[in-house]
Amino acid sequence: MSLVIKEVSKTYKDKKALQQINWNIQSEKIYGLLGRNGAGKSTLLNIIANRSFASNGTITLNGLLLVDNEAALNQIYLMSEDNLYPGNLKVKKCFQLTADFYGDFDWALAEEMIAGFGLEQKSSLRKLSTGYRSIAKLIMALCVPADYIFLDEPVLGLDANHRDLFYHYLLTAYAKRPRTFVISTHLIEEVANLLEEVIIIDEGKVLREATTEAIQAAGKVITGPKEVVAQVVSDLKVIGEDELGGMLSVYIEGAAPKDIPQGVSVAPLNLQAYFVQLTKKGVA
Amino acid sequence: MSLVIKEVSKTYKDKKALQQINWNIQSEKIYGLLGRNGAGKSTLLNIIANRSFASNGTITLNGLLLVDNEAALNQIYLMSEDNLYPGNLKVKKCFQLTADFYGDFDWALAEEMIAGFGLEQKSSLRKLSTGYRSIAKLIMALCVPADYIFLDEPVLGLDANHRDLFYHYLLTAYAKRPRTFVISTHLIEEVANLLEEVIIIDEGKVLREATTEAIQAAGKVITGPKEVVAQVVSDLKVIGEDELGGMLSVYIEGAAPKDIPQGVSVAPLNLQAYFVQLTKKGVA
Repeated sequence: MSLVIKEVSKTYKDKKALQQINWNIQSEKIYGLLGRNGAGKSTLLNIIANRSFASNGTITLNGLLLVDNEAALNQIYLMSEDNLYPGNLKVKKCFQLTADFYGDFDWALAEEMIAGFGLEQKSSLRKLSTGYRSIAKLIMALCVPADYIFLDEPVLGLDANHRDLFYHYLLTAYAKRPRTFVISTHLIEEVANLLEEVIIIDEGKVLREATTEAIQAAGKVITGPKEVVAQVVSDLKVIGEDELGGMLSVYIEGAAPKDIPQGVSVAPLNLQAYFVQLTKKGVA
Repeated sequence: MSLVIKEVSKTYKDKKALQQINWNIQSEKIYGLLGRNGAGKSTLLNIIANRSFASNGTITLNGLLLVDNEAALNQIYLMSEDNLYPGNLKVKKCFQLTADFYGDFDWALAEEMIAGFGLEQKSSLRKLSTGYRSIAKLIMALCVPADYIFLDEPVLGLDANHRDLFYHYLLTAYAKRPRTFVISTHLIEEVANLLEEVIIIDEGKVLREATTEAIQAAGKVITGPKEVVAQVVSDLKVIGEDELGGMLSVYIEGAAPKDIPQGVSVAPLNLQAYFVQLTKKGVA
C-alpha cells in the first residue's frame, strides 16, 4: 500500500505554487513535511485531500487515481487551519458528524483525549481558544479510521504541556493501529524524534527527502577563527554561515574533514537548525 | 519608572479568572509571562492595556492610575490575537494609522523588518497567512514609541527562520532603545535566553516570579531505579515524576542532595521542562 504523488504541479495565475512534486508516501510510517511559510505545504496537502486540484500530475492510492474516488478519499484525512464545520456547532456534534461520515470512530480514544486535554464538549467551535480549537481537530484526526492522516500545523496555539500530551496520544494511536501520519509543523525540533522520514519542500519543489536519521547525520556546524574555518570548508558543501566577532560558524552538509585544526570545533546540527540553514533565502 | 500591578482580580460570572495578582514590572527589562492555556495571561494583558477592567485592584505607571489616563496608556502597547483593524485594510495603511496614533514610529526599523520578512505591504490583513498576520503585528509592536510592550503569542504561525529573525529584531530594537518587553509564549525554550525575568501564572494566580537564572537553577530531574530514587527524593520538594519500565524520573525544585547513590543521575531542567512539571494538573 502506498500513496503516490507523481509530477504534481499547481499554478495560480502566474505563480508556480508547486513544481513537479514526486513523493511516495508509504503505509504505516510517520513523516515530517517541512517547509517555510509559503513553500507550498498546505497547497500540496489540499490537493492530496481533494480540496484543491493539481494543474498537472497524478495522485494514486494503491494504484487507483484519487480524484473523485470516494473509497480512496475516505482513507485520507486532513486536519488543517480550515474550519470544516460552522462556528456555532458544538464540539460534541462535530465529533458525531465526523464519526457518521467516516464510520468506525475510535470513541474510546476520543473520550480519553477529551478528559486528558480538559476539552469542553458543550462549547461551540467559535468560542474555543486557538489552542482548544486545534485540540478538537486533533481528536477527530486521531480517531477517524483513515489510513493516511495529514496534520497541518497540529499544535498551533497549544501550550507546552498540551503539546507533550498530543505527541503522547499520537504515538499511542499509532501503536494501537499503525497508519501513516504526515505532520507539517514549524516546531521542528519538538517532533524530530517522532519522525521516521522527512521531506523538505522549498519554493514549491522537493529540496530533500530521506530518513530522519540520514537528514540529522547530514548537517554539521564548523566554528572557529574566520580565516581558519574558511580554509577548512573550502572544498565542502556549505549551506549557510554566521559571523560573530572574529569567529565564523559555517554550516555544511556531508562529512567533515578528518583533520580539524586546533581551535576549530565540529558539532552536529539538529533537524531544526539544519532546516533553517537549508531554507534561508538565497540557498538551495 | 515602573508599572505596578497591585492585588488585581477579575471575576467572570462565577469564574475567578485572576486572583490578587501582584507584579512590579520594571523599566527596560525583558520579561517572560508564562502560563498554561486558560491560566489568565491574556485576561491580565487585556486589563493592563485597558481593553478590559479589573474587578478589583489597581495598576499604576510611575504612581499614576492607568485607567482612562491617556498619557500613561500611550506608554503601553499590546500585541495580541485580537485584530484591532478591519480585515480589508491594507498592511501599509495599518502601519500608517498606528504611526499617526502613537507618533514617533520607527519607520527605519519597520522598513528593515518588512524587507527581512518579505511582508507584502499591499495585501489586506485578511489575505495574510496566520504567520504573516503575526509578522505585521510584530512590526507595529517593535516600532511604536511606547515604553512597555506586551507581546501575546508573538510567533504564532511563524516558521523557524522567521522566529529566529524576530528574536534578532527584538534584541536589535531593545539595544537601540531599551524599553520593557513582556513576552507571553508557549514556545518557552526558544525565548529562554532572551528573558531576564520570568513570571509564571497558573489558574489565575502568580505561581513563581524570579530572574530567569534563578528559575533555571531551581529545577532538577533525578533519574534511576524506582526504589532508590524514591529514597533519594523523600525529603525534597517534588514537582512531578515520570516512570518508564523500572526507572523513575522525579522532578524537584531546590538543591539536590550531595550524596547521590550509584546508578542515579541528577540533571538540570530547562525552563520549558520546569514549567511543564510545575503546571501539570494537580501540582501547585
